[in-house]
Amino acid sequence: MSKSYVVAILGATGAVGTRMVDQLAESDIQVSKLKLLASARSVGKKMGFRGQSLTVQAATPDSFNGVDIVLASAGGQVSARLLPEAVKRGAVCIDNTSYFRMNDHVPLIVPEVNVDQIQNHHGIIANPNCSTIEMVVALNPVRVKYGLKQIIVSTYQSAGGAGQAGIKELYREAKAYLNNEPVKSEILPVKGGKRHYPIAFNLLPQIDVFENNDYTHEEQKMIHETKKIMCGDKNSTELKITATCVRVPIPIAHGETVYFTTEMTPSSDDIRRTLTKAPGVVVQDDPQHQVYPQPVNVIGSDATFVGRVRSDMENQRAYHMWVVADNLIKGAAGNAVQIAEELINQGAVHESKASAVLFE
Amino acid sequence: MSKSYVVAILGATGAVGTRMVDQLAESDIQVSKLKLLASARSVGKKMGFRGQSLTVQAATPDSFNGVDIVLASAGGQVSARLLPEAVKRGAVCIDNTSYFRMNDHVPLIVPEVNVDQIQNHHGIIANPNCSTIEMVVALNPVRVKYGLKQIIVSTYQSAGGAGQAGIKELYREAKAYLNNEPVKSEILPVKGGKRHYPIAFNLLPQIDVFENNDYTHEEQKMIHETKKIMCGDKNSTELKITATCVRVPIPIAHGETVYFTTEMTPSSDDIRRTLTKAPGVVVQDDPQHQVYPQPVNVIGSDATFVGRVRSDMENQRAYHMWVVADNLIKGAAGNAVQIAEELINQGAVHESKASAVLFE
Repeated sequence: MSKSYVVAILGATGAVGTRMVDQLAESDIQVSKLKLLASARSVGKKMGFRGQSLTVQAATPDSFNGVDIVLASAGGQVSARLLPEAVKRGAVCIDNTSYFRMNDHVPLIVPEVNVDQIQNHHGIIANPNCSTIEMVVALNPVRVKYGLKQIIVSTYQSAGGAGQAGIKELYREAKAYLNNEPVKSEILPVKGGKRHYPIAFNLLPQIDVFENNDYTHEEQKMIHETKKIMCGDKNSTELKITATCVRVPIPIAHGETVYFTTEMTPSSDDIRRTLTKAPGVVVQDDPQHQVYPQPVNVIGSDATFVGRVRSDMENQRAYHMWVVADNLIKGAAGNAVQIAEELINQGAVHESKASAVLFE
Repeated sequence: MSKSYVVAILGATGAVGTRMVDQLAESDIQVSKLKLLASARSVGKKMGFRGQSLTVQAATPDSFNGVDIVLASAGGQVSARLLPEAVKRGAVCIDNTSYFRMNDHVPLIVPEVNVDQIQNHHGIIANPNCSTIEMVVALNPVRVKYGLKQIIVSTYQSAGGAGQAGIKELYREAKAYLNNEPVKSEILPVKGGKRHYPIAFNLLPQIDVFENNDYTHEEQKMIHETKKIMCGDKNSTELKITATCVRVPIPIAHGETVYFTTEMTPSSDDIRRTLTKAPGVVVQDDPQHQVYPQPVNVIGSDATFVGRVRSDMENQRAYHMWVVADNLIKGAAGNAVQIAEELINQGAVHESKASAVLFE
């Protein structure tokens, strides 16, 4: 990584954007210039990066002149409008929104799983959904070694999945509740949605909007993104996946109960051993000493934590695991910066294929 | 219900006990005398019942002289010690602890499911675990109509499952956390356990102690109790069940994502219609209008709430549902009082078979 790069962070002041700045600072990437871009509301704000104080600028098409790498997390519509402008100006964009994820010309990357797909980019690489990333990091070593047939996942997702506003709403509501004051909900379950419900001391079995098949968009994302990442096709029938996504009253980190079936017949010890050696995975699994992943302990880490690995007592080749990761780091900013590092390692920053196919 | 009964509530001052007093007060049961029994610590405390103020007494064997019905929720060891004394004195006991649940001579009853088993009691009837009750109330109508083959459940269980002390710990920790004060955990995940972890703004994938197979006792309870209630045998192979139980930072009510497979091939609409007509079930399932069960809305109700009913898109005869109930009412006190009502309706209060088999 001797070359240095001009990097832009789009949505730099958000829950994920601020962590992109931090993760980039901690990375080995040589940054000759960092542009912090955001909406008009945040213009002029100062943010620190590797000892410098940088000023947030308004994001316009020309902001991307001379930029090599864009890390974007300012919402799907902002990505839709501005990333083509960045690509036109020669930048490669790593987009944390869902806008381009299902585009056949956009690689959807979790470096631990499908780093070989990075080179296929046409100027845009998509960062998967937070709840997808930690699940595929934990399951891919199992898939590679024992074959994976089916996944049934239930999520326990933090308010931070709805950004800084979600975390603030959780704390504001919790304080009001504990003070016996009325709780007023304005953000969750879906920002800008018709109805809002409290998250403090409550559970919301809705993340994102509902589709016509009564699954939420979040649940559909987990299904199609996992297939695209693991099988190369969002509609692959190689691997069956179904999901229920639930918002729980914690600020940061997502938990997941992952039930899966395999082609081979490993023991739970075999799976645990395989995961112990897997990239990006930390196994915390010693039930007799009450050792298992907990959200409060993983905040700030870029790893995916796995525990409670055990066999279904009545079905062969069926297992449980409990997965927890910081949704804003491994589930977003950390994975995006990891993709940028791989892009650089592979010399693929300016190697994008014709971007025309992307925007036709 | 014209006859009247002498009722004793053992553990009357606990989270479940206080609700037993309330549920009994609201029931149609004629109570000629109510004895409130507890440990020495609570003796002398006053509690209201149908307009009377009653004084809590110390629980001793002779407390049960003349008692017809005992409702017990003072912990397994207290039930083990005192319920045989109550049975010896002619009472029938409805026990909320797990102590007698797996005894072959003790019916394990959820009235909506196996009310016909009540008559088989030998002086003790067991009330199932909170997380089991709501699941079987929601699934039994499906089992009866479409056949049930397999259940995979993940729970979202409230701090109230650990009694009043669990709720207090959640609130105490949440206040400390929000005030940036140190959080000290003393109860959860298991009262009297070696290690304690915070529940406020956290998730604990441990409820009760771990068994040798790396499942928790709570998870094992869900498996064996469901089989005993639905199939009449705790080790039945008719129905496969597996579970992961997680404690979440809410005070009262348990959520469950229930994935199940059936023998027949109903549509999700068929299942929803069946549940709408089922006893004890309230269907709240209108995704397009963001209608689904939420813990904050079910507190105080004796019903089991079901929503998010939908088919697995890739597996025939496989479905999801989201179930929520007040764990202290339908999951405990409400179910116990409902059993007492059925006992009376069936004229089975003093019809217990020889109790000798129970205690040999």
